Amino acid sequence: MDAHRDDDVNWLDDDRFHDECGVVAVYGHPEAANLTYLGLHALQHRGQESAGIATVDEGGALHLHRAMGLVQDVFNPAVMPSLPGRIAIGHVRYSTAGGSHVRNAQPFGVEHGGAPLACAHNGNLTNAEALKRELDAAGAIFQTTTDTEVFLHLVARAPKGDVVDRVVHALRAAQGAFSVVFLVGDTLIAARDPHGFRPLSLGILDRAYVVASEPTAFDLIAAEFVRDIEPGEVLVIQRDGIRSLLPFGEVPARFCVFEHVYFARPDSVLGGRSVYATRRRMGAVLSKVAPVEADVVIPVPDSGVPAAIGYAEAAGLPFQMGLIRSHYVGRTFIEPSQSIRHFGVRLKLNPVREVLQNRRVVVVDDSIVRGTTSRKIVKMLRDAGAREVHLRISSPPTRWPCFYGIDTPTRRELIAASHTTDEIARYITSDSLAYLPLEGLREAVNYPSGEGFCEACFTGDYPVSAVPAERLVR
Amino acid sequence: MDAHRDDDVNWLDDDRFHDECGVVAVYGHPEAANLTYLGLHALQHRGQESAGIATVDEGGALHLHRAMGLVQDVFNPAVMPSLPGRIAIGHVRYSTAGGSHVRNAQPFGVEHGGAPLACAHNGNLTNAEALKRELDAAGAIFQTTTDTEVFLHLVARAPKGDVVDRVVHALRAAQGAFSVVFLVGDTLIAARDPHGFRPLSLGILDRAYVVASEPTAFDLIAAEFVRDIEPGEVLVIQRDGIRSLLPFGEVPARFCVFEHVYFARPDSVLGGRSVYATRRRMGAVLSKVAPVEADVVIPVPDSGVPAAIGYAEAAGLPFQMGLIRSHYVGRTFIEPSQSIRHFGVRLKLNPVREVLQNRRVVVVDDSIVRGTTSRKIVKMLRDAGAREVHLRISSPPTRWPCFYGIDTPTRRELIAASHTTDEIARYITSDSLAYLPLEGLREAVNYPSGEGFCEACFTGDYPVSAVPAERLVR
Amino acid sequence: MDAHRDDDVNWLDDDRFHDECGVVAVYGHPEAANLTYLGLHALQHRGQESAGIATVDEGGALHLHRAMGLVQDVFNPAVMPSLPGRIAIGHVRYSTAGGSHVRNAQPFGVEHGGAPLACAHNGNLTNAEALKRELDAAGAIFQTTTDTEVFLHLVARAPKGDVVDRVVHALRAAQGAFSVVFLVGDTLIAARDPHGFRPLSLGILDRAYVVASEPTAFDLIAAEFVRDIEPGEVLVIQRDGIRSLLPFGEVPARFCVFEHVYFARPDSVLGGRSVYATRRRMGAVLSKVAPVEADVVIPVPDSGVPAAIGYAEAAGLPFQMGLIRSHYVGRTFIEPSQSIRHFGVRLKLNPVREVLQNRRVVVVDDSIVRGTTSRKIVKMLRDAGAREVHLRISSPPTRWPCFYGIDTPTRRELIAASHTTDEIARYITSDSLAYLPLEGLREAVNYPSGEGFCEACFTGDYPVSAVPAERLVR
Amino acid sequence: MDAHRDDDVNWLDDDRFHDECGVVAVYGHPEAANLTYLGLHALQHRGQESAGIATVDEGGALHLHRAMGLVQDVFNPAVMPSLPGRIAIGHVRYSTAGGSHVRNAQPFGVEHGGAPLACAHNGNLTNAEALKRELDAAGAIFQTTTDTEVFLHLVARAPKGDVVDRVVHALRAAQGAFSVVFLVGDTLIAARDPHGFRPLSLGILDRAYVVASEPTAFDLIAAEFVRDIEPGEVLVIQRDGIRSLLPFGEVPARFCVFEHVYFARPDSVLGGRSVYATRRRMGAVLSKVAPVEADVVIPVPDSGVPAAIGYAEAAGLPFQMGLIRSHYVGRTFIEPSQSIRHFGVRLKLNPVREVLQNRRVVVVDDSIVRGTTSRKIVKMLRDAGAREVHLRISSPPTRWPCFYGIDTPTRRELIAASHTTDEIARYITSDSLAYLPLEGLREAVNYPSGEGFCEACFTGDYPVSAVPAERLVR
Repeated sequence: MDAHRDDDVNWLDDDRFHDECGVVAVYGHPEAANLTYLGLHALQHRGQESAGIATVDEGGALHLHRAMGLVQDVFNPAVMPSLPGRIAIGHVRYSTAGGSHVRNAQPFGVEHGGAPLACAHNGNLTNAEALKRELDAAGAIFQTTTDTEVFLHLVARAPKGDVVDRVVHALRAAQGAFSVVFLVGDTLIAARDPHGFRPLSLGILDRAYVVASEPTAFDLIAAEFVRDIEPGEVLVIQRDGIRSLLPFGEVPARFCVFEHVYFARPDSVLGGRSVYATRRRMGAVLSKVAPVEADVVIPVPDSGVPAAIGYAEAAGLPFQMGLIRSHYVGRTFIEPSQSIRHFGVRLKLNPVREVLQNRRVVVVDDSIVRGTTSRKIVKMLRDAGAREVHLRISSPPTRWPCFYGIDTPTRRELIAASHTTDEIARYITSDSLAYLPLEGLREAVNYPSGEGFCEACFTGDYPVSAVPAERLVR
Repeated sequence: MDAHRDDDVNWLDDDRFHDECGVVAVYGHPEAANLTYLGLHALQHRGQESAGIATVDEGGALHLHRAMGLVQDVFNPAVMPSLPGRIAIGHVRYSTAGGSHVRNAQPFGVEHGGAPLACAHNGNLTNAEALKRELDAAGAIFQTTTDTEVFLHLVARAPKGDVVDRVVHALRAAQGAFSVVFLVGDTLIAARDPHGFRPLSLGILDRAYVVASEPTAFDLIAAEFVRDIEPGEVLVIQRDGIRSLLPFGEVPARFCVFEHVYFARPDSVLGGRSVYATRRRMGAVLSKVAPVEADVVIPVPDSGVPAAIGYAEAAGLPFQMGLIRSHYVGRTFIEPSQSIRHFGVRLKLNPVREVLQNRRVVVVDDSIVRGTTSRKIVKMLRDAGAREVHLRISSPPTRWPCFYGIDTPTRRELIAASHTTDEIARYITSDSLAYLPLEGLREAVNYPSGEGFCEACFTGDYPVSAVPAERLVR
Repeated sequence: MDAHRDDDVNWLDDDRFHDECGVVAVYGHPEAANLTYLGLHALQHRGQESAGIATVDEGGALHLHRAMGLVQDVFNPAVMPSLPGRIAIGHVRYSTAGGSHVRNAQPFGVEHGGAPLACAHNGNLTNAEALKRELDAAGAIFQTTTDTEVFLHLVARAPKGDVVDRVVHALRAAQGAFSVVFLVGDTLIAARDPHGFRPLSLGILDRAYVVASEPTAFDLIAAEFVRDIEPGEVLVIQRDGIRSLLPFGEVPARFCVFEHVYFARPDSVLGGRSVYATRRRMGAVLSKVAPVEADVVIPVPDSGVPAAIGYAEAAGLPFQMGLIRSHYVGRTFIEPSQSIRHFGVRLKLNPVREVLQNRRVVVVDDSIVRGTTSRKIVKMLRDAGAREVHLRISSPPTRWPCFYGIDTPTRRELIAASHTTDEIARYITSDSLAYLPLEGLREAVNYPSGEGFCEACFTGDYPVSAVPAERLVR
Repeated sequence: MDAHRDDDVNWLDDDRFHDECGVVAVYGHPEAANLTYLGLHALQHRGQESAGIATVDEGGALHLHRAMGLVQDVFNPAVMPSLPGRIAIGHVRYSTAGGSHVRNAQPFGVEHGGAPLACAHNGNLTNAEALKRELDAAGAIFQTTTDTEVFLHLVARAPKGDVVDRVVHALRAAQGAFSVVFLVGDTLIAARDPHGFRPLSLGILDRAYVVASEPTAFDLIAAEFVRDIEPGEVLVIQRDGIRSLLPFGEVPARFCVFEHVYFARPDSVLGGRSVYATRRRMGAVLSKVAPVEADVVIPVPDSGVPAAIGYAEAAGLPFQMGLIRSHYVGRTFIEPSQSIRHFGVRLKLNPVREVLQNRRVVVVDDSIVRGTTSRKIVKMLRDAGAREVHLRISSPPTRWPCFYGIDTPTRRELIAASHTTDEIARYITSDSLAYLPLEGLREAVNYPSGEGFCEACFTGDYPVSAVPAERLVR
C-alpha cells in the first residue's frame, strides 16, 4: 500500500470524487448575462477550473467570454458589458490536473450558417471518441478535446432544416450522460440524456426562463423553481413559448446517487428530495446499522456535517465540531523540507483538542477514495487526544470509476476496489470502520427498489444502454 | 434607520468587527521563511488585505517581500528563494476600505546603522499621531501611515547602545495595544503591551523558537506551544538563548474578550481557555438566561456554530445547519439592476427549507453591528418557511468603538449604541431577540470578577492608562 | 477635404500602406522553434499585432503558441520549451484597428486525421468569402475569420490520399495572393500563388531548410539564401529531401512593386534586386524628372532615407537628417486637451532647426496615403525655419486599394484617387510636389516592359486571373 | 583580451556610456501631469528603466506614480487621473543591471511637516555615501539607495524656516553633479550644481513654466525655450512668479561634453549649440585629421549618422546607410545553442551588401567602450564584402570612468584605458582606426580654450571642487 501518496500537500479535496461541470441558461431577460453570472456563482462547487458565458444579442450576434479561474475572477465589470442580449448560457468546469486549458473552457460557440451556435455541457459522452473519429474522417476540424465541440459538429452536419430538428439529430447520436444547453440563433434548448444521470432544473423569473444544474442557483437570483427537466426530455424555449420533446426511446432513469452523497449543495432539492435531509437520513441509518459506544460524534467538515448530525441524533450522542476547516482556498506550494506529521491535512483541518481529549470519537465522512485522507484524519484525532476513533462513511464503498461525468481515479487507486473494510480500517488505523450499506443508502435516499438511480460507482453495474467504451475494451 | 445600507452586496463579513492583523516570527530555523509563510496561512483569518515576510540572512542582509492579497497569492515558489536566512518575521493585514495600499503592508524593514531593522505589529497605538508629529518635526520622513513605521523611527532615534535597550526605549514611548515582533540584526524581540490587549504566544520547533498571534499557527507547522507571552513582557531571542524583560510599570491585564467571542479561530487556546469551549459555554449560558420555546437551533455559520451547539445542548433542542454558507470568497461586483430580495445575503448564505419549514427557529450569531445583516437573515429564514425566528446573540450589545486594534464602525453606526434591544428586535423583525449579558459572558469566559479582560466595546470603560486620544477630544 | 483626421495622435505609421504578415518555416533543425523565433524577429516590420509558432515534435504531436504582441513579448524563456521538435512554422501579423483578436493570430493548427495540420499565411484570398460560405453550408465550423482557417478546412475536406495532394487540392481552390507554409504531419509545404504577389524565399542552414518572407530573416540566423520560391511553385520538404511542384496553370508573374517602395527591409534582396539600391535609384530617377533649386535634401525617416540619398546624389545637393525620429514605439494615449500644433507628428518626428533654417528644403518620402501626414510634416519644416519646402515622392500616386495582402484605406480616403497633384500640393501646403512617374518606377526597379510586377495600387489594373470579388461588385 | 564578452547577445546599447536620468517639471498648468508625461516621452532616450510623476493637487495633497518600464507603459489612461494638480515633476531612469528596483524609481516623495516634499534628480552626488552615513547615525531611516532620498532627508533636517532656505541648505551639502527639481508644497525649485555637469533648461507654455533636461522636450508640448538654467543657479517658481538664486560659491562651468558626443538627442540645443551641427562638425574635423582613401562613408546608426554625414561631406565621399538598424527593441533572451557568427550584433544591425561589396568603407561611430561591438561590426562589414574597413570615432579615446551621472564601466573594461590605438585597431581587426583628438573635439564643439566643459572621461582630469571619493581612495 506504499503507492499511496501520503505526502501530497493538496490532498483534501483531491482525494474525493469530483463533479465535472455546472450549467446555467437564461432566456428572455434584459440582464441575461448578469443572472447567468450569479447562477454560475451559486454552482461554483461544481467546477473551479474555468468559467464562461455566451450570449446572443438583439441583432443575432454571438458574444462569448471564458477563461481559467473562479467565476468572480473570470467576470468583472469590464467584461460584462461585452455580453449583451436577452439569452445567455454559462458553464463552470472542474479543474483536472492534466488537459486543463482555456481552449477547453466552455461554453463553446461559433457562428454557423449565419447564426450563433453555442453549447454548454455537464456530463460525459461514452461514444465521444468514436464520434470524433467519424467526424474527423469526414473533414471536421476539432479545436478542443471536449464533448461540447462534438455536439456542435453534429449539429453543423445535421440534415438541413429546423434548428430544433438538427439539435435533436445531434443529441440522438450521443450516448452517455448529458445535461446540456444549446443556444441556436434565438432559440434555447436544454436537454437531459434518457437516463438522466446529471441533474437539470427549470426555473422562472418574471417572464424569463432559467435552467440550471441545481435549483440552488435559482435561490440566489430569486427565480422560482418550476420542475426538474425529465430524463430524456428536450426543452425548447423560443420567443413564442416553451415546449417539451421526448425524442429518445424510453430507458430506465439512472440519476447519479452520488449527487446526494457529496456533489450537490445541501441546500439543493434534487428529484424532489432535499439533499440536506437525505444526508441527515444517511447518518441516521448508518447509526442504526453501525452503532458504537462513544462520547461524541464529529463530522469531517463541510461535506460530512449533515450525516454526522443525523448519526448523533439517532445515536443519542452529542454532536461537536471537532475539526475546524480553513476556508482560505488551501492549495499551497510549500511543504517544509523537514517532514511535518499530517502536514497536508493541517492546511485545511485542525482538531479542537477540548472536544477530543480522552473521548471515544465517531467521525463521519461521506466517502473514502484512496484512504490517505482518512488515515491522516484518524492520526490527527488521536494526536489531539482521542481515546478511540471510529470512522463512519455515509455511503457504500466506492469500487468503480464513473463514466458519466464524474472525475474518479482508476480502479487501482480506489482503495475499496481491492481491499476489504477490515483491511481499510487497518490501513487508516481507526478502531472501527463502517460504511453505509447499499440498502441503507436506498433507504435514506428513498428508492427501496433500487430503481431510478445510478449506483455504478458502488456496484460496477453500468446502465446497459450506456455502457462506456472503456468498459468494453478493458 | 434608513441610513443603514440595506442594499450593500458585500455585507456579510463587512457587518462584523475585524481584527486588524496577525504576526508570526521564527528564530533559528533553516526554513524560517517557509515556516513563517505557513504560520501566516494559519492566521489568514486575522487579515486578508496584504501579507509580508522579512528575513535576515547569514550575512546579515535584510530580505523583504510584501504585497496585497492572500498569503497564498503573495508568496509563490518564485518568491520564496528570495527570503533566505534562519530568522524571519511575517504579517497579515486586514483589508479596510480606505487607506489600503501596498505601502502600508508589513513587515516594515530598513537597513539602519549598518544592520537590518524590521517590525510587524498587531494592535493600535493610541498616541501614534502625537508621536508622528514629534518625529516629523524632528526631521523624520514617513513612508507609510502605519504604527509600525513609528516604532522604527523611535528605534532609529533611541540613544545609542544595545539594540535591546533601543527597542525597549521605543516601546516605552508607545501607548495603547501592541503585540509586536522586531528583527534587529540577528536578534528577535517579541513584545506585548502592558495591558496585553492582543494575544501573542511562544512556541518551539526542534531548537527553533516560534512566535505567533494565535497558537493555532503552531499546529500547522507542528511546533509545540510553550506559553503565552505575558502582558508587558519583552522577549529577547538571540543566538545564545532567550530572556524575558518586564520594562513597563505594572498595570492590570486587559485581554480583548472579543477574541473569544469572534476573532480567534475556535481551535485556538488563548490565556489557557479553549476558544471553542468558551463559545459553547456562551451558548449554554445564553440558553439559561434567554430560553425560548422552539423546534430547532441553527447557527449563522461559521462563527456562530459553537455557541449554537452549546445553546441547543443546554436547551435540549435539536441542532441543525439551517443556513448553508458558500465559501467561494463571495465578494461580487454585480447586483442585477432589478432588485432581488436579500440579494447580498444570498451570495454567502442560503437557507435549507427542509430544516426551517413550519419550525420555530432559534438562530444564534456572535454579535450585531449595524443590524442590517441580522435583518436580512431573519427575513430569509421566514421566506424559507420558519414559523418563528428568535435571534440569540452570544455576546452583550456592542455599543462602543475599539481603539486597541479592532476595526469597528463609529458609534453612530453601532445599532446598539442608540437603540434598545426591543427597538433592535423590531428593526430586524425577529420574534424575539436576546443578548448574552456581561455577567453571562464573564461566566462563560470564566472571569467572574470582571478583571483581566477589556470589555470596552460593550461598556465604554476604556482602560485608564490607555485612554485613546480620540476619547479625550470627543 | 475636412474628412481628413488631422488630429489623430497615432498617425505616422497609420498613414501608410501596411503589409499584413510575415512567415517563417524551419525544417530539420533541433532548434527549429528558436530559429523561427529569430526569423520572426527579423520580420517584425511585416506585422506587429500578434506572433505565433507551431511545431511538430518527434512523436508527431503538434505544439502551438501564439499571442497578441511583439515577437519578443509573445515568446519568452518559459514558452520556448513548450515548442519542441525539428519542424516549425511561424507568423507575424499586422495590427489592424478592428477585428484584431488573439483568435485570429496565426499559425492556425489542429490535429486532423491523427496528424498535425498547421498553416501560416501572408497574402489575401480574393475568393475567401465564397469559400467560407460553401464550407459553412457543408457543415464546417469556423473559429476565426482568417484565410488560414479556410485553407485548413479545404485540406481537411480534400479527397483522401497523400498529404501533398490534399494541400495542392486546397491551394487550387484559392484565388488571390498567398505565400503560405503548411505543416502536415512531418511534411513542410511552402507555396506561392501563381502571380507571386508576395515574396517567399528558401534558405539553408547546415542541413536544415528555412523558408521566410524576406531573406533578411536568413541573415540573423546565419542561414544561406538559396533562391526565391517561384510564383506558382509548391515546395515540398520531407525527410527524404525537397521537391518542387508547379500545379497551377501558368499566368504572368505579378510581384508587388510596393515591397520595393516601402514594405521590405532595405537590407533585403527580392527577385534578385537589392531593396536599398532600388530605392536609391528611385530617388535618382525622381531627381532627374522632378528637379528643383534647393539647398538641402532630407528624408522622412526611416523609410525615405535611401531615396533621399539617391535624390541628393543625383542632384548634387547635400543630404542631411533634418527630421529626427523617436524609436520609442510612439503610440501614446494622451493628447493634452489644449491643442498643440502638429502634436501627433511630434511624437515621432522632430525637426533639426540648424539644418532647415532659411534653407530651401527637398523632403523625400515614399508615398502619400491620406495626405494628412505630409501636410503636418510640411508645416513642421516651415515652423522650423525652412524657406521653401518641396515634397518628392519616390513612387507614383497611390490611387487604388490593394486586394493582395496589403492593408490600404478605401478609395475615398486615398487623396490621390480624387485629387490632382496640384490639388494635393495645395492641401499639404508644399511649394512643390512631384511623384515618381510609373515609367520612372519601372526604370528604378528595372522592368521597363512593365511585365512581372503588380502595380494595381497605382493603376487600378488588377491582374485578370485574380480580380477580387470586391472589384466586381463595386 | 579574452575577457571581453564576445558572446553577449544584448551588447549593442550595453557597450556604450549611458546617461542616468532625465527630469521634467511643469508649474501652473491644468494639465501638469499630461505635459510631464509627454516631456518624459521626449526624454525617453535618457533612461528606460523606470518612469515616475509626482503632482501636488489644489488641496496640497501629494500624488505619486512610478514603476519599472518605458514611459508609455508606466502611464496609461487609468493612471493619469490619479495625478491631479497644476504642479508636477517627472523622471526617467536608466536601466542598470544591478540595483534596479522599483523602490529606486523616482520621483521620491513624502508628506513632511504637513506638506508634500518630492524630488527628481539627474546626476550623481560624489559625497552621497558620507551624507548617508551621517544621516543614518542621526536616526534617519533610508528606504532607497538613491541620491534623491539623501536630498529629502537633508531638507527634512534643515533648520526650520522658509522652504526655499531649507532646500538651498540641502543643496549646499551636496557635492558632484545634480540637475534636480524639487516640489515643496506649492513651490517648484529647479537647481543645477555649480559646475553644471548635466543640462537643464527652462521653457514657457502659455503662462506655465516648464523645466526639462533637454529642450527637445519643449518641442513635443509646443512650449517655448526660454534659456538654459545656469550652472549654480537655483530657480524658485511660486504662485507670485519666478526668481533666481546663486547660493553657491563660483566655480568654473564643466558641462559634460559627452552630451554632445552621444547622450543628447540630435535635435536638442545645449548651451546654445545645436547637437546635430556639433556632431556633423566632429565628423568634418575628423575627416581633416584622419583622412583615408575610400569609396563610401557609412554610420553606425543611429548615433553615428550626423558625424558620418559630416565626414563624407568634408572628405567628398558618398554617404550611404550601409548598416540597417532594427528598432524593435532588440533585447532577446534566445541565442541558438549553435553559435552564430556575430549573433548579437545582427539582432540590431544588418549590412546592406549592395553598398559594401568590393568597397573601401569608412565607418563612423561615436565612441568605443569595450571594443567588442566595434570588432563585431568590422567583421560583419567584411563578411558583407567590404574590401577595406576604416573605423573613425567622433570623440577621443574614453579612458576614465565618469562620476557625474553617467553609467560607465570600470577602467579595466575601458579598452582605451590600457591599449594604444594601434592595439585597439588590431583587436577590432579594422584596416585603420582613428579617434577625434581632444583639440578636434574642442574645435567641433567650439571651446578652443578647453574651458567650460568636463572632459574627465577622456582626460581623467576631474574638476577639483568635485573630486569623487572613489578617486581619492583608489
